[in-house]
Amino acid sequence: MTRIFDDPAEFADDQLAGFLDLYADRVRGVHGGVVAHRGEQPQVAVVIGGGSGHYPAFCGTVGPGLATGAVVGNIFTSPSAAQAYSVGRAADQGRGMIFSFGNYAGDTINFGIAAERLRAEGIDARIVVVTDDVASAEQESQRRGIAGDFTVFKVMGAAAAQGLGIDEVERLGNAANAATRTLGVAFSGCTMPGEDEPLFTVPEGHLGLGLGIHGEPGIRDVPMLPARELAQLLVDDVLKHAPSGSGKRVGAILNGLGTTKYEELFLLWRHVAPRLRDAGLEIVDPEVGELVTSLDMGGCSLTLMWLDDELDPLWRADTYTPAYRKVGAPLAALRAPTADELEQARAVVTAPEAGDAGRRLAGTVREVLAVVETTIRDNEHELGRIDAVAGDGDHGRGMVKGITAATARIAECDDGTGGGWLLQQAGQAWAERAGGTSGVLWGAALESLGRHLGDTADGYPPDVVAAGVREFATTIQQLGGAEPGDKTLLDALLPFVDELERGVGSGTGLARAWTAAADTATASARRTAELRPRIGRARPLAEKSVGTPDAGATSMALIVTAVGTVLTSQEERK
Amino acid sequence: MTRIFDDPAEFADDQLAGFLDLYADRVRGVHGGVVAHRGEQPQVAVVIGGGSGHYPAFCGTVGPGLATGAVVGNIFTSPSAAQAYSVGRAADQGRGMIFSFGNYAGDTINFGIAAERLRAEGIDARIVVVTDDVASAEQESQRRGIAGDFTVFKVMGAAAAQGLGIDEVERLGNAANAATRTLGVAFSGCTMPGEDEPLFTVPEGHLGLGLGIHGEPGIRDVPMLPARELAQLLVDDVLKHAPSGSGKRVGAILNGLGTTKYEELFLLWRHVAPRLRDAGLEIVDPEVGELVTSLDMGGCSLTLMWLDDELDPLWRADTYTPAYRKVGAPLAALRAPTADELEQARAVVTAPEAGDAGRRLAGTVREVLAVVETTIRDNEHELGRIDAVAGDGDHGRGMVKGITAATARIAECDDGTGGGWLLQQAGQAWAERAGGTSGVLWGAALESLGRHLGDTADGYPPDVVAAGVREFATTIQQLGGAEPGDKTLLDALLPFVDELERGVGSGTGLARAWTAAADTATASARRTAELRPRIGRARPLAEKSVGTPDAGATSMALIVTAVGTVLTSQEERK
Repeated sequence: MTRIFDDPAEFADDQLAGFLDLYADRVRGVHGGVVAHRGEQPQVAVVIGGGSGHYPAFCGTVGPGLATGAVVGNIFTSPSAAQAYSVGRAADQGRGMIFSFGNYAGDTINFGIAAERLRAEGIDARIVVVTDDVASAEQESQRRGIAGDFTVFKVMGAAAAQGLGIDEVERLGNAANAATRTLGVAFSGCTMPGEDEPLFTVPEGHLGLGLGIHGEPGIRDVPMLPARELAQLLVDDVLKHAPSGSGKRVGAILNGLGTTKYEELFLLWRHVAPRLRDAGLEIVDPEVGELVTSLDMGGCSLTLMWLDDELDPLWRADTYTPAYRKVGAPLAALRAPTADELEQARAVVTAPEAGDAGRRLAGTVREVLAVVETTIRDNEHELGRIDAVAGDGDHGRGMVKGITAATARIAECDDGTGGGWLLQQAGQAWAERAGGTSGVLWGAALESLGRHLGDTADGYPPDVVAAGVREFATTIQQLGGAEPGDKTLLDALLPFVDELERGVGSGTGLARAWTAAADTATASARRTAELRPRIGRARPLAEKSVGTPDAGATSMALIVTAVGTVLTSQEERK
Repeated sequence: MTRIFDDPAEFADDQLAGFLDLYADRVRGVHGGVVAHRGEQPQVAVVIGGGSGHYPAFCGTVGPGLATGAVVGNIFTSPSAAQAYSVGRAADQGRGMIFSFGNYAGDTINFGIAAERLRAEGIDARIVVVTDDVASAEQESQRRGIAGDFTVFKVMGAAAAQGLGIDEVERLGNAANAATRTLGVAFSGCTMPGEDEPLFTVPEGHLGLGLGIHGEPGIRDVPMLPARELAQLLVDDVLKHAPSGSGKRVGAILNGLGTTKYEELFLLWRHVAPRLRDAGLEIVDPEVGELVTSLDMGGCSLTLMWLDDELDPLWRADTYTPAYRKVGAPLAALRAPTADELEQARAVVTAPEAGDAGRRLAGTVREVLAVVETTIRDNEHELGRIDAVAGDGDHGRGMVKGITAATARIAECDDGTGGGWLLQQAGQAWAERAGGTSGVLWGAALESLGRHLGDTADGYPPDVVAAGVREFATTIQQLGGAEPGDKTLLDALLPFVDELERGVGSGTGLARAWTAAADTATASARRTAELRPRIGRARPLAEKSVGTPDAGATSMALIVTAVGTVLTSQEERK
């Protein structure tokens, strides 16, 4: 729906005023439209036009290498003869001028009258009509002009910029039109400023084949297609209408009509391009985006211009307009990466050589993660139930996915791999697979713990382990941005680390200190039932959550408790 | 609504495949995103990113003078840490790399993890977060990043392209963010691929103030505003949040979110620009268009970046990416028109010196047009009634508007003006004011008759007048494209001209030949009742029209009959 306007009747003039303010450094307004500032040498003037509502058509493509002027009519309405005359006269640089526009009755009449007037005043005025829409008529001369306007304007603009004479520019324009074919589809209609209803509608789940760009509905409605089949429809129908004797090079435009966005067009191009290449065509300088629109219409069109040795360089040529800019130099300065650079980018960092202590640590890591996996699986359902009270209930599932990915990843690592490296790998796998904020944080925390411990130390005394766990907690705090009391896993984790550091600092052995800290974590997790969530997904349901402990704090307590049992049994085995 | 996709879950990857096919000459795909081909000198890598659905953000702005790489997440979803790491590693050119992205929890976590990993591998990885959205939080550091992403990326990209070191590029990026403010409004929500319903809706007739770009609704809904007031709202609120100590130069972006189209944005800019200038600001290189979108969302945002002497040249600098291209050279070669050229473009062609015969002709023209005006006014209602049977009933009104404009225009011409010139002026005024195809054709025909007769002949014998009337008919035939029998004014006009030529050719005086031809026209007009319209607006109601004569043929017959009475009375006066 068109939403921004003052007086709907003045829409065309009002938008032109904004355009002229914006691009005052390169175009000027004249009665009826826009004229480009001049280059050094006078050139044949190419004056394009039609109604408004089609931006970048028409005034968006005025500038060096494209149009010399644009006539700006009301929305979807031909400009008057007086407007066309005025722009034609102002654009003329003494080498003659050519009006070019899509084949519609109003445009033909008004540009025709203007050309007559200019000729009567001694200006050599010509007309090149665009007729690219294969769906609009069997006979080529009766077809409408839609997105193929652009290829014809581009060729004439480039020819004129190269200094060719008016006969040549006219001839090349007609050659471009004869070489251009378009088929369009509409998904939804467009609304005029001030109107509530679109000019037409496409039945839900359908597309209109052979749309017009002035709110004309398609020739017929067919059921909506997946992207691959839509590409096939467009390519095959345009190729069916290829000019006779056409060659193997094509310029291409996949044009969006307004509401159909860039990423949809790229997705469609993914299917269009190979199908064109499979037909033996070489695609030259394809354009995927918005070149000829219809206000907020949904839909797109495929245009091909078959190139010969004359049209090819004109299609490729530099141009610089408000909406369409192509300059070869910045790309010419680029180079594709070297084999070395590609190799470096791909480089998989390999595990460092681990010392004896690192290898022993690896055993503990493998044992710990196995026990953690069992613990989480045993509690998956309960964690989900707690999370569902004020969240989406996926915490148990997410934790299972994370730990499963972690244990699977370390199972792939060689026996000699150090424990620090294993923790880093486990963390990366956890973050990639678990999903959700808590999964990513768990993964990052394990990774930083692993980096902290490393694999080359002579040993891992309790204070080093405690410092690593502090690092684990700090990572979660910094990345997640939560504070104590926000009802997150930190409300179990931070009391745990504090207690662990206290125990280790006072000389208690690791297993005993850890177990005591785990008890603190369990009690702290339980107490989160009194808290209101202040961050994350559960926040909107804060009141509902009171009385239930935080799922992330609960799983944290369960895990550190399970790790404590491993450490204790390891110490007992010594 | 998002319409083009195959498997909705694969949308982000599928669209990226199309993008990479299209721009294979300047970027390459790596795991997780896109990396630009290298320039001649290694530079600090600027890696931008976030979810998909925001094109041109993020991969559309990868290229010389802007980003070195883009990380591409799922639609509206942060990329994973593994994706960000992979793109960061591939983009690094040995001078360090900076991740930059809008301030969202997921992005902060994932880019943060990736930066940690890169640092662990010896790559100097930094982070610059964008926080431009003034509506999202009071505290600057907690604000979201929306369209201001672009100004920050642009400044860093330009600084890196100039060869600055990583400390400088990072510092300038943070300075750009500190200088950037955005406020956005939403008119309608956006739909995810495969979904039927938008992520949120704005109540009809309202706009959502302070939108998010991930389908988050606005902070609050307010009644929809006319463009002028909308501009006021955006400008005033952004200025209210200006950074303290900011200067008087601003870079500006008026950004469309997807469904809000260029012409609407130009219309809005028409009000935004003067309001900024009234506030004493100089606007530097404003951008009006789509830079950060949200699929098919309706809405727009205004971004200002306050420029100092450091940021100014970086904002202006050349860049060349798939979606955003700014190159100074083509504009530098242009020049504004000289005073002479402007004069020539404006030149009003003045009436040629008329001879005696031309002056006498002027008397006839004035008398004829006065009588025609009376005739049409007398028949306005009846012509409207006939037209309403199968048309829109405005033929009488349109003819009155045309002839009134014509007589008013010639009343302004000097007494000494020739009749040929008067007819040309009458025709131009008629075409401009009458509207509709028949009005334009009547105007063009009168103009060509006037050109044919001219003002310098020694006299206007009957055969010259008849040839002029033939020219009148041919103009209508050629411009309008109708054939005899299509039930148009030609079905009265052509029999009239044939009969006039026959009479004049056989030596009958002009008045008698004209009167006889007018009788033929009247009979022919009546016989159009038997015809079915084959062209123009009445065609869809062809059957309904049978039994009623064509309104255009009827008015033609009335007019030539009235002209006959003038010619007869003139001859009698002699």
